[in-house]
Amino acid sequence: MKVGILGLGTVGGGVVNVLKKNGASIERRTGVKIEVILAGVRDIKQDRICDTSNIKLTEDPFEVVNHPEIDVVLELIGGTGVTKKLVETAIKNGKHVITANKALIAKHGNKLIQSANKNKVRLLFEASVAGGIPIIKAIREGLAANKVNWVAGILNGTTNYILTEMKENNLSFDTALKQAQDLGFAEADPTFDIEGVDAAHKITILASIAFGIPINFDAVHVEGISNLSQKDITYAEELGYKIKLLGIAKSQNADVEIRVHPTLVPKNRLVANVDGAMNAVLVHGNMVGPTLYYGAGAGAEPTASAVVADVIDIARQTKLSQDTLIPSLGFMPDKINEKNILSIENIFSEYYLRFTMKNQAGLLAKITNIFADHDISINSMVHKEVQENNQNPDIFLITSKTKEADIDTIISEIELLPENTEKVVKIRTEELNK
Amino acid sequence: MKVGILGLGTVGGGVVNVLKKNGASIERRTGVKIEVILAGVRDIKQDRICDTSNIKLTEDPFEVVNHPEIDVVLELIGGTGVTKKLVETAIKNGKHVITANKALIAKHGNKLIQSANKNKVRLLFEASVAGGIPIIKAIREGLAANKVNWVAGILNGTTNYILTEMKENNLSFDTALKQAQDLGFAEADPTFDIEGVDAAHKITILASIAFGIPINFDAVHVEGISNLSQKDITYAEELGYKIKLLGIAKSQNADVEIRVHPTLVPKNRLVANVDGAMNAVLVHGNMVGPTLYYGAGAGAEPTASAVVADVIDIARQTKLSQDTLIPSLGFMPDKINEKNILSIENIFSEYYLRFTMKNQAGLLAKITNIFADHDISINSMVHKEVQENNQNPDIFLITSKTKEADIDTIISEIELLPENTEKVVKIRTEELNK
Repeated sequence: MKVGILGLGTVGGGVVNVLKKNGASIERRTGVKIEVILAGVRDIKQDRICDTSNIKLTEDPFEVVNHPEIDVVLELIGGTGVTKKLVETAIKNGKHVITANKALIAKHGNKLIQSANKNKVRLLFEASVAGGIPIIKAIREGLAANKVNWVAGILNGTTNYILTEMKENNLSFDTALKQAQDLGFAEADPTFDIEGVDAAHKITILASIAFGIPINFDAVHVEGISNLSQKDITYAEELGYKIKLLGIAKSQNADVEIRVHPTLVPKNRLVANVDGAMNAVLVHGNMVGPTLYYGAGAGAEPTASAVVADVIDIARQTKLSQDTLIPSLGFMPDKINEKNILSIENIFSEYYLRFTMKNQAGLLAKITNIFADHDISINSMVHKEVQENNQNPDIFLITSKTKEADIDTIISEIELLPENTEKVVKIRTEELNK
Repeated sequence: MKVGILGLGTVGGGVVNVLKKNGASIERRTGVKIEVILAGVRDIKQDRICDTSNIKLTEDPFEVVNHPEIDVVLELIGGTGVTKKLVETAIKNGKHVITANKALIAKHGNKLIQSANKNKVRLLFEASVAGGIPIIKAIREGLAANKVNWVAGILNGTTNYILTEMKENNLSFDTALKQAQDLGFAEADPTFDIEGVDAAHKITILASIAFGIPINFDAVHVEGISNLSQKDITYAEELGYKIKLLGIAKSQNADVEIRVHPTLVPKNRLVANVDGAMNAVLVHGNMVGPTLYYGAGAGAEPTASAVVADVIDIARQTKLSQDTLIPSLGFMPDKINEKNILSIENIFSEYYLRFTMKNQAGLLAKITNIFADHDISINSMVHKEVQENNQNPDIFLITSKTKEADIDTIISEIELLPENTEKVVKIRTEELNK
């Protein structure tokens, strides 16, 4: 499958990197070799984040959309002027188009989709909403058996970062914005993000997919966070709420609501605990009830992950693939590879251990020496005092990352100590953060 | 598209209900009319949770898998004995098969998938893992551009309910299990759930889809929660962790880990805050980073939602559909319907309001009278004392659910009060729980 890219900046460069880094795995999944053959760029000589040695570069973007060998065009330049013309031309030339451009879809999606349908090509835009989270696929396919009651999402990382900082560190909006700009989470001109326009583009697209209505950006009510006072974040907390900038789309019988505004959300909801630059979308279906999707909403690689997922869909679902069936296990049947599954003694984990011991002088030293002998460190350790007469005290701790076999050796040595009274309790610990 | 169902119990009955209740919407999404024409049941005379007036019932399940008009067979009886034979026969007869049966896939999936590939039909099992959450589709398609580093999931609602009760209400395992049984969250013989076997079936399936390896249930390390002491839940909390029964699958270079066991998870992770009978799965891709998927893991309608999503995939992606392209907006182009988008004055919401007022006698009465005059009630209200000299006190409150136009009227009346010193702050509040 031959791919042409418009734009080799953050997202375009990310796509080239994903296709290179994960190319073998993607070919296992699709049975199709995906090749980027041509890219339209503003300045051929500019430095890039990706290797372009096998890609022809051109400064004429129309060369890409008119190239006879190209099956799929990735529009990753943004904007709605000449970009619209480029996408239209690609579609008329019978090429599938994938875009990360939420403004283009929110403003001109209806016509572009109509044209794509007429020309029997696909127009896909997973990356336009919530970056790497496959939220469009979830609603369009995963929840297709449901009538969607409502969608509510944290769709803009910049504003969520600012709101998190305002709450956690008692910052004013202006200070938090400045900090976000210094750290690269907000642009020099942050208007688009902080006034809610970016989130409005995204909720407009999600509303159409949720309810099967035309894309109608002009009907959306939009309020940003620039007038939000730190005081109200504190007061909301007192009342049991957090303030999030939500895009909300609700079905109300014959009517629909679509709006973006700062919103109080009960603080024990999962979505209220999505902090920093992360995104999350709640979708409530009439059969499945509430479901939530969480992940990185921006960045070169997460966004490229969504763009390439659309490329893979096209490779799998159109005549470009010899076998149009998506494989049951997600990989082509002849590419399912045996791998060694580690026995439990060979895994590495942190461990919670609890000892119940007779309280005797030097006990803690005895235990910690056993750990030291095996060169395993202890992250945190608590020695519970005896609370009632005749009860042995508990000692519990969390180890550093260790091979399970070594922990089991330590446990058997500790169980042999004369002070030990019960079987040692061992529970594995996972940080789940990287 | 003609569908035959094996089993009309909780899930089968749920599927018939979903297809009836959302039938029009599903036809808008697929362009295909989906009809259940035949169902195999144990006892034709039994009462059912669904309307069977247009479905022929038979007590011979082989009549379903051999029926010449049926395109898709839904296997919703469970078990791995005769059920396996039924699925094999359906596949050999050229019928697509959809199953919610995790034990069948975990134990016999490799052979069944091989047979489906040979017979050029699809074998789909979205409902076999995490109920209504479209997690298989997310990994197989949404994250297909990634190499998956690891998957970690709360995959069993019964055990998550028990762990939540043990922690929140300081119950022993036995008491919490008894309570779960009384409330219908656990079966009379709960072994399968509490010993981790159910979660092990599910993580086995997810591991195969994540890494492209054969399904290998026998290599999975499984520990349940029946030996878990309430004491360790408390101690984990002291160390900053919650205990969850996780199914974990990790890629370790050439090797893979697959295991189910109670696990300490830092308590500020989203997955640590998934409580009660809900499920959630974390998937870490090498490009997208961590993503999380949350929803109902069991129940008639959530499970049916996943089964019917697979039915819709088949309707859209095979020759059964005249147009094999999945529509860009998820609905067929000629079924995109205009809907009225409510103007913001016409929406209903709860509202956080903050007033800054000169502190005078009778002030609160004045405010509350204005609310009473408009028949709008106040959920909670706080009157902040003056903290520094010459500073006006704040009053903030949350209203009951009200039309925005009415709130705006109240605000303008309050802003006319002589005590009022600043513009009233209004922020919408959403409970997001139903």
